[in-house]
Amino acid sequence: MAKDSLHELSIRLRDFARARDWEQFHSPKNLAMALAGEAGELLGHFQWLTEAQSYALAEDKREQVALELADILIYVLRCAERLDVDVMAAAWRKIEINERRYPVHRVYGDARRAGEYEVESDGE
Amino acid sequence: MAKDSLHELSIRLRDFARARDWEQFHSPKNLAMALAGEAGELLGHFQWLTEAQSYALAEDKREQVALELADILIYVLRCAERLDVDVMAAAWRKIEINERRYPVHRVYGDARRAGEYEVESDGE
Amino acid sequence: MAKDSLHELSIRLRDFARARDWEQFHSPKNLAMALAGEAGELLGHFQWLTEAQSYALAEDKREQVALELADILIYVLRCAERLDVDVMAAAWRKIEINERRYPVHRVYGDARRAGEYEVESDGE
Amino acid sequence: MAKDSLHELSIRLRDFARARDWEQFHSPKNLAMALAGEAGELLGHFQWLTEAQSYALAEDKREQVALELADILIYVLRCAERLDVDVMAAAWRKIEINERRYPVHRVYGDARRAGEYEVESDGE
Repeated sequence: MAKDSLHELSIRLRDFARARDWEQFHSPKNLAMALAGEAGELLGHFQWLTEAQSYALAEDKREQVALELADILIYVLRCAERLDVDVMAAAWRKIEINERRYPVHRVYGDARRAGEYEVESDGE
Repeated sequence: MAKDSLHELSIRLRDFARARDWEQFHSPKNLAMALAGEAGELLGHFQWLTEAQSYALAEDKREQVALELADILIYVLRCAERLDVDVMAAAWRKIEINERRYPVHRVYGDARRAGEYEVESDGE
Repeated sequence: MAKDSLHELSIRLRDFARARDWEQFHSPKNLAMALAGEAGELLGHFQWLTEAQSYALAEDKREQVALELADILIYVLRCAERLDVDVMAAAWRKIEINERRYPVHRVYGDARRAGEYEVESDGE
Repeated sequence: MAKDSLHELSIRLRDFARARDWEQFHSPKNLAMALAGEAGELLGHFQWLTEAQSYALAEDKREQVALELADILIYVLRCAERLDVDVMAAAWRKIEINERRYPVHRVYGDARRAGEYEVESDGE
């Protein structure tokens, strides 16, 4: 089994939901909520840590964080499947967009929000 | 190029950040925030839609949602890379946990929060 | 005691943090994360409910939701206090902004995202 | 007008929604989503800042953050109103709960997640 395959994982998740008759609950709207809820749990692990501490998690906490990231990945795939979206293709498209939006010479060492760059460029 | 490979995508994202000297900003704490911020944007697309409407997005909106899901996937991979976590392996572990936690005969057609099942089982 | 006073509540919360030497953790950045984490917990209560069900919570669940909303209010006040922001004054300012952005004759019965209205008005 | 009164603000927000026939969209479920979406926007302002930078925002950014906090407060009040919950009373209840959960002598200078304290206390 190719453990690197998102497609295979996505099929497995769909079968899990179908076996439990849970697809009735898995509207894109509801899955977006579940995804954001898991993102909130991820925040909980980091909120009182310094950035430096956030790199050096204890082993049990690192496993908890790994499972939160897995939950988020799971809901990304479920939501994409329900909308018939190819999220891997979208990620490669997004990288191309970001290459154009953030040219190296312009943003080197400077991470602001996209909106903040755009405001600036209005004045150029 | 195997577009289904998370590993390849993850390497590409790391190189993107390094080329811009952005790894200094990409602590796990900060990436968790960025991920949750994107999850918030995903919610924005669905918040006033009915569940039925959330399946049937107009094409331009569907593309926007695809790119939001891509952003979330991107931050999942960045965060996992910074923590040296194998998120695909974690997802398959999580499925095994969920198989035990939600046996088909117990949860068929009934989607509550994990905590709500657990409270109930305390009283069994 | 005026239970309707946000100022009094904010002072009480600041004293709670100071008594525990927790102000060192309460940077605006960290409080924003804690707030978003609580917002994620709020979502968890509603994610598998229909909209109709979300009005008619069982009494124990309604109390849990009340406490989640309270947690969010608490972090709003903490974050505002740390930034020396008057959140009530900002809320009244925001209402004025929304009055101008969403005139009744234009948006009656139609709730889209602010950005979606703006795109449309570009074409007027 | 008592600008410190949450009740007055809540009435104003309800009237705003009714004037636009928007109450049909303001189910507790949808309002929870909108609230979490605003919390995500708040994160966006802080995600690449250090904690120290998060205290010292430029004036225009501080005003943007004030308006994000206002948006969150607004959705807290809307959600509470739709559920007939008194969020101020809930906040004072929550403070009492936190006083018991986090006694000063036990947590002085140590901010972990509630769950982490509880796990520890199971082993006492």
